Amino acid sequence: MSPALVCQDVSHNYDVVIVGAGPVGLMLSTCLSRWGYRVKHIDNRPEPTATGRADGIQPRSLDLLRNMGLKSAIMAHKPARVYEVAFWDPSESGKGIARTGTWASCPNFIDARYPFTTLLHQGHIERVFIADLEKNGTRIQRPWTITGFQTRNPETSEYPVQVELEHVNGTEKETVYAKYLFGGEGARSFIRQQLNIGVQHKDPIAYVWGVMDGVVNTDFPDIKMKCTIRSPHGSIMVIPREDNMVRLYIQIASSTDPDWSPRRTATEAEVQASAKKILQPYSIEWEHVEWYSVYPIGQGISDRYTLDERVFLGGDACHTHSPKAGQGMNTAFLDALNLAWKIHAVEGGFANREILKTYESERKAVAQSLLDFDNRYAKLFSQRPPATSEVQAASEVTPDAHQDTENAFIKTFKESCEFTSGYGVSYQPNALNWSPDHPAQSSLMQPKGTKLQSGRLFVIADVTRVVDANVVHLEQEIPLNGSFRIFIFAGDPVKNRAAVRDLADHLINASSFYAAYIRPDIDEVSHHEKHNPHSLFFTLCTIFAAKRHCIEIQRDAPGALGRYRDHVYADDRWDRRVPDARAPAHAKMGLDEERGGVVVVRPDGYVGMVAALVEGSGTVDALNAYFSAFCTKKFGSVAAQL
Amino acid sequence: MSPALVCQDVSHNYDVVIVGAGPVGLMLSTCLSRWGYRVKHIDNRPEPTATGRADGIQPRSLDLLRNMGLKSAIMAHKPARVYEVAFWDPSESGKGIARTGTWASCPNFIDARYPFTTLLHQGHIERVFIADLEKNGTRIQRPWTITGFQTRNPETSEYPVQVELEHVNGTEKETVYAKYLFGGEGARSFIRQQLNIGVQHKDPIAYVWGVMDGVVNTDFPDIKMKCTIRSPHGSIMVIPREDNMVRLYIQIASSTDPDWSPRRTATEAEVQASAKKILQPYSIEWEHVEWYSVYPIGQGISDRYTLDERVFLGGDACHTHSPKAGQGMNTAFLDALNLAWKIHAVEGGFANREILKTYESERKAVAQSLLDFDNRYAKLFSQRPPATSEVQAASEVTPDAHQDTENAFIKTFKESCEFTSGYGVSYQPNALNWSPDHPAQSSLMQPKGTKLQSGRLFVIADVTRVVDANVVHLEQEIPLNGSFRIFIFAGDPVKNRAAVRDLADHLINASSFYAAYIRPDIDEVSHHEKHNPHSLFFTLCTIFAAKRHCIEIQRDAPGALGRYRDHVYADDRWDRRVPDARAPAHAKMGLDEERGGVVVVRPDGYVGMVAALVEGSGTVDALNAYFSAFCTKKFGSVAAQL
Repeated sequence: MSPALVCQDVSHNYDVVIVGAGPVGLMLSTCLSRWGYRVKHIDNRPEPTATGRADGIQPRSLDLLRNMGLKSAIMAHKPARVYEVAFWDPSESGKGIARTGTWASCPNFIDARYPFTTLLHQGHIERVFIADLEKNGTRIQRPWTITGFQTRNPETSEYPVQVELEHVNGTEKETVYAKYLFGGEGARSFIRQQLNIGVQHKDPIAYVWGVMDGVVNTDFPDIKMKCTIRSPHGSIMVIPREDNMVRLYIQIASSTDPDWSPRRTATEAEVQASAKKILQPYSIEWEHVEWYSVYPIGQGISDRYTLDERVFLGGDACHTHSPKAGQGMNTAFLDALNLAWKIHAVEGGFANREILKTYESERKAVAQSLLDFDNRYAKLFSQRPPATSEVQAASEVTPDAHQDTENAFIKTFKESCEFTSGYGVSYQPNALNWSPDHPAQSSLMQPKGTKLQSGRLFVIADVTRVVDANVVHLEQEIPLNGSFRIFIFAGDPVKNRAAVRDLADHLINASSFYAAYIRPDIDEVSHHEKHNPHSLFFTLCTIFAAKRHCIEIQRDAPGALGRYRDHVYADDRWDRRVPDARAPAHAKMGLDEERGGVVVVRPDGYVGMVAALVEGSGTVDALNAYFSAFCTKKFGSVAAQL
Repeated sequence: MSPALVCQDVSHNYDVVIVGAGPVGLMLSTCLSRWGYRVKHIDNRPEPTATGRADGIQPRSLDLLRNMGLKSAIMAHKPARVYEVAFWDPSESGKGIARTGTWASCPNFIDARYPFTTLLHQGHIERVFIADLEKNGTRIQRPWTITGFQTRNPETSEYPVQVELEHVNGTEKETVYAKYLFGGEGARSFIRQQLNIGVQHKDPIAYVWGVMDGVVNTDFPDIKMKCTIRSPHGSIMVIPREDNMVRLYIQIASSTDPDWSPRRTATEAEVQASAKKILQPYSIEWEHVEWYSVYPIGQGISDRYTLDERVFLGGDACHTHSPKAGQGMNTAFLDALNLAWKIHAVEGGFANREILKTYESERKAVAQSLLDFDNRYAKLFSQRPPATSEVQAASEVTPDAHQDTENAFIKTFKESCEFTSGYGVSYQPNALNWSPDHPAQSSLMQPKGTKLQSGRLFVIADVTRVVDANVVHLEQEIPLNGSFRIFIFAGDPVKNRAAVRDLADHLINASSFYAAYIRPDIDEVSHHEKHNPHSLFFTLCTIFAAKRHCIEIQRDAPGALGRYRDHVYADDRWDRRVPDARAPAHAKMGLDEERGGVVVVRPDGYVGMVAALVEGSGTVDALNAYFSAFCTKKFGSVAAQL
């Protein structure tokens, strides 16, 4: 800290100021509040979202919400679940519409815990986050807005971002100082405009959409399914909702229409009349309309997500696209999660500030893929409806099928399923995601056979927790605590004993990555602490390829591994995807059932690196090299070379 | 109603007065409140259970709680889950104790959704019920007690039971009139004593138990498991609890001890000292004791559960046993559930009052089996610890193994697992549970091959709901609504079309059981009503042995079957227990995949009867005969014979 720093009233100092309490702002705020940061969170609306704006929660987002302990509160609202999408087209008879096919939202080839999309009023979801925030001491200040901000002396000042806030009615003003400012204010972001960051439109076509939530009486058989309906009278998208509601999306105009106007609109009655025509020969009557809105939307992507790694943008402030993709909230969640753990790693003194640059590079690439997909998805069905056999072939688990034997349709179908399920995100190589170009060079990296890929999600697997014999979901065992998750697939507890012992020994070597970040309050840590007994930045899990009753933690999990006694597992749960495996979790990861391997998973659930587990110092050397690439210290032989 | 009936202030009239707000009272109250009955519910404690008294929730009880929509609120408290029990005995070396084996609480041979016992503070469970009661307009009056009661003119009076209630401090009194009075006041039931009903003791031995809940620091490796520990210094039972707590049960004295006294007791410090000795060579220290209590308990069973089918007893008022069995709350729930639906059936004008007699006959037999089991279970381990191979053999799924090839140990083991999981309950034949002696005589009854047994629980199965493609648990699809559940396994939708059509046609025949109980408000029923569109006493489910996309409800589910559009399913979900079945749910029930069958499940989830599904009137004839045995009307040919 510079001694020249102007003395500030510390009550105005915050770790982060967050503008906007939609999904992106709430996710960021919730993570940072849980991890002990001081958050100023404002929103210009007096209340959370009251009606409309329901977004789908993808399977992958449901994993995340469960990992945060928020899933059950969301599911308590009994949301609709979409397992399949039905396609309706003009019938061959020429009269009305007929179903041409259905496909799974999240087919078998994706190994998902929750193979469905969850549909729920956004207000319910927001309130679950708000309740959690309040438990952690953060209260959203409403209705307040931002009127200005400025970053000064980021090198020397602890709180370099000055932010001007104001009550929306102008009666009160507040100046606060922050380490970071986050703009999650939606498509018309004030912060983005102030920074003069442009928006690029991938697809130059803009659309006007009508959306109507209501309760209907209809004999249309798929009213509880997600449906895409095309008819000579226009197109509609049907989305089931909680409480017997249904949402209809109807495209009212596009910029390719001869009489296009972004202000062209339609009344509630006109949309209903249009829907009645489209649904023929089926009837539909509205018992109740909860919400109706018309809005223009085009595909857009922000040029930058940050200019200085102090002021960041995320969510709709960075990317907009058609509602059909149902990706808004999910992409927002993952933007925020990506940024949250990186801020934590930097502010906790663990990682170099450089890693904050990967927020833009990782998340902007995802937004670009999403927009590309949105276009391809739209075109996919405008060409021809897929044959049932194609959909079936594409939906099956085909672990041995080669990509090149698949036709273009199946390929696009699979990609689209990966996107709509949320499992399509793949981060490119960088300091966090190992590749052969990574500074960490070791012959142990990415051992032959592994099915895990750096930058992609960890694979799901059931295992048995040794300490209490509970059958658990391994990927959910570490809560979203901001720590790197080190999964030690220990292989055979007898044959591999020396390698596990060597790993444990080298892990606590003074020059190791693990020993370098011991928590400052280490002497006061309770023996009940399960996840962070030594460091706030690592949680270890050890998984043995053995039956539970063959494992004794005291004997088989030496040193630090045994301290995480609630994170020692038996890989003894049968899995249909690897029916003949003796150790199914090892097999699903593509790791040897005898010799195992070590998997480093980033705090957001994406694989950072995989290394073989060997006798001697090799495995810890490889881990040291990986963490040396982005941590504030250098470890092992990397340190020795300095 | 007799015109001579004394005019009463109707505000003092209740359908039922319930005394005691423990598990049995709460379950009864919750069911009847949900089904629209007026309930007066009192408890002599000022608050719900504050500490201690945690009971295990069995797998079968968890099914029930889920069926009531209460499971997630209970699981939100993060209860401990017991998947395995560990047995510790004096070590062969003679020093301290050693683990001699473990076994599953609910092994694979039991087809359970939740193969674990859930352990949670009883107060949390009570509060979940209390919140539900309040939603349905019933508030527990505390601290109030019962001082007297009398049944007068049950044949002529609408509210024949006069009950005297009083605030525990004697300041207020109230006289109320009820159709039924229920005593769920625990082992020292005032109502049972007033009725002069005796208690028989199966096992003449009485025990004094100490129970201590607390947080410990120990190196005993199984502290998070359920353990039975025997040592030369005594015996202890370990039960894991929520919030890092552990419960220890320690037997302090028994009536076979030379210095036996029912008042013999032990201090907290004495019990801790004793536990330390027993656990050697492991250490244990208490960080915090939440609750400690000593109580004498013996096995007892009430001679009668009711004398007049107006005043009933249930729960601990009827049966007491050692805490080791962990059956208290579960048996209480099932007592209450058994009575609740029968009261509903009688008071709703559906069933003859005679069925109320089956409450005692069914539930007393269960209590007797439970006490028998409790004795056998205790003896099982006092003889010899089982060999690992025996436990393994007993745990496996052995559908083809014959009982007689199993040794006595395995047999007792299986029985004990069925008991501890809650799946061991089997109601004997009576008017509700069909047998060859039942008045309903039809060659279609209990078709060859069926694996369902009258008086036992329906089998679990996954199916796909046609209307929204959701994958669901068939056994959970009908909520606990007091209705009989008629599962029409429709077989092949094409080949079996005529049989399904005939069933649907005869179902709505004016003389059928189904048409006889149309709800009085039938004209005002919303088209959104899923479960009881026609009758409050039946819910129909139709399950086709076909892929979901092959089923069109309008075409394949005729008449009444199609009106239950949310209860039409595709039997197309692979099941590991019948890996080669084309229609796994049909196969698990033992029903033909082409021709199906009809299963009547009682409102409490136990199978009432199974009939073949045939063309013509035969199937509905069989159903008519079954319901004629206990309903207020006679149906079909049974009616014609009158």
